[in-house]
Amino acid sequence: MIRIAVDGMGGHYAPQVVVEGAVQAANDFAHLEIVLVGQTDALKRELNRHKVLGGKIVIEHAPEVIEMGESPVSALKKKKSSSIGVCIDLLKQSKVDAVMTAGNTGAAVAASTIHLGLLKGIKRPGIAISTPTLHGISIAIDVGANLNPSAEELCQYAIMADVYARSIYKKKRPSVGLLNIGEEECKGTEVLKEAYKLLRESSLNFIGNIEGRDFFTGKVDCIICDGFVGNVVLKMCESVIETAVALISRELKKNPLSILGATLCKPAMDSIRKETNYEEAGGAPLLGVNGIVIISHGMSSAKAIRNAIRVAGEIVSQDLNTHIIDAISTMINPTNNSVRKNP
Amino acid sequence: MIRIAVDGMGGHYAPQVVVEGAVQAANDFAHLEIVLVGQTDALKRELNRHKVLGGKIVIEHAPEVIEMGESPVSALKKKKSSSIGVCIDLLKQSKVDAVMTAGNTGAAVAASTIHLGLLKGIKRPGIAISTPTLHGISIAIDVGANLNPSAEELCQYAIMADVYARSIYKKKRPSVGLLNIGEEECKGTEVLKEAYKLLRESSLNFIGNIEGRDFFTGKVDCIICDGFVGNVVLKMCESVIETAVALISRELKKNPLSILGATLCKPAMDSIRKETNYEEAGGAPLLGVNGIVIISHGMSSAKAIRNAIRVAGEIVSQDLNTHIIDAISTMINPTNNSVRKNP
Repeated sequence: MIRIAVDGMGGHYAPQVVVEGAVQAANDFAHLEIVLVGQTDALKRELNRHKVLGGKIVIEHAPEVIEMGESPVSALKKKKSSSIGVCIDLLKQSKVDAVMTAGNTGAAVAASTIHLGLLKGIKRPGIAISTPTLHGISIAIDVGANLNPSAEELCQYAIMADVYARSIYKKKRPSVGLLNIGEEECKGTEVLKEAYKLLRESSLNFIGNIEGRDFFTGKVDCIICDGFVGNVVLKMCESVIETAVALISRELKKNPLSILGATLCKPAMDSIRKETNYEEAGGAPLLGVNGIVIISHGMSSAKAIRNAIRVAGEIVSQDLNTHIIDAISTMINPTNNSVRKNP
Repeated sequence: MIRIAVDGMGGHYAPQVVVEGAVQAANDFAHLEIVLVGQTDALKRELNRHKVLGGKIVIEHAPEVIEMGESPVSALKKKKSSSIGVCIDLLKQSKVDAVMTAGNTGAAVAASTIHLGLLKGIKRPGIAISTPTLHGISIAIDVGANLNPSAEELCQYAIMADVYARSIYKKKRPSVGLLNIGEEECKGTEVLKEAYKLLRESSLNFIGNIEGRDFFTGKVDCIICDGFVGNVVLKMCESVIETAVALISRELKKNPLSILGATLCKPAMDSIRKETNYEEAGGAPLLGVNGIVIISHGMSSAKAIRNAIRVAGEIVSQDLNTHIIDAISTMINPTNNSVRKNP
């Protein structure tokens, strides 16, 4: 049995939608036990509205809530018994195997980093999102934990993304690309030029710089970027299909033949929306912390919450962090923490 | 008559496509005179393949070419008579009114900054692209000239974008948004927090932070960002429609009814492609330099080149730089170059 703590109060639609998603996960995945963390009364009220059929859900009380707009570090200091704080404590005490939250991302990153600590050799954690492309899933890291990574930190993200792609997506030798403003080695900031050099010398399957246009096409399995550009791009991706559909619908309504055409195309359009919907991927692991923490979108639907919990279970099953520790110890020079060169 | 120097050797498909675009512009816009700059033989050979009907095209010899992948500053030093260098010289000597190039962006920015200098009060130039959204054109600045702008430089970009939106797009009181990873004032890097404060205190119509998802929706008229994220996002935008169309086509081919549907939708789809095509916008001015310099996409088609030349003409007609100088002198405190607070 895998036990997963779910931050019942985290996210724009908490606790309603989070509880609904947790119930779906409990019912669909018999090997998971959900520990719903938050204000007992509110969680019980929501739980009573659903039928928990096969699975198991228990409640763990946490009286305080960190709101979405709060400054992470000061909120964590002020609210010692927040739902995210209690989740991380349960994980630290090994009372659960993983944590899933759709709440304040900064607070989740700070609580994880401070209380769980980092995996041996890792300098900063990064959020690794799975994004749908023309050629299947790509992983992008970091998408919001580290706005100004160093070249070494970017390399560590590449190592972790490689392990993630191999363990979870069963990719044989994942390709790695550095998000930049041009393909040439001389492009971008000093940090990116240095990261390019380190990645080229590593044993990873580094194919060089990629550009914004390569994001959707699935040119590489692992997209390495700083958390600022990663976050902006991720939020763009989410809006792209919606915007395209809005544009297309507006245009199609202009004449009767295309209205008929649109009706005939609807099943295909729905299938694309499903294929490219973030709800399917569900959640993004915070890689590099000493524990499995899954961060989900603040606007997550119940289905997205269910899938994020599923992802948490898969990562626990695959023992991802052990593989990351192995890869880092093989590829990072222990004397000075630098990336070991390709022999 | 407005005279525009066109870098005949700049861009992935130069000189063929550039010359073709220049001929289209000369034929379509009788008030423009085109000075094609580059290797005379090559340009003449291309010119001979087209009919110049109404307009006027002359050739100015420049023996050297800066390639797309070259390091800008060292290339400019080494090649004193490059086509982009000669273009900028012509502008400096007032022999032309504007320059248009689809060549090495870094070289165009460096040559303009070094040889033309900056407008009074401006600290760094920025590239202002016009991007199609759900609600018309938005302007995004910077998209590649300045990878690490200061808070003050971001504010100056906002002032210049405001002037551009008013002069060229006739927007009454353009809204301004700062591209960030969250809407709250506390979000993002230290530079962005400082820029937020300066913009809020300015007399611009600043509506706060915007996120990646707001890029396509046209939430604001002017999107202010650093050149790195701007460039990545811009290149994503270009690929979005292509990717969406590829996804949709693949899906639609799966059954006969949707094939029929797709046929009926085709005119609407074509219209969207046109509406969102970068070729229509054509070129992006490098704002802040002492002269009109239009930068076009390296992959520009003849039509995109034609439209970039048209944009150059419009900006000259509107006397944009005089308006920018006025705005900067009104809004920037001359004693310390800081943004003047809203009275």
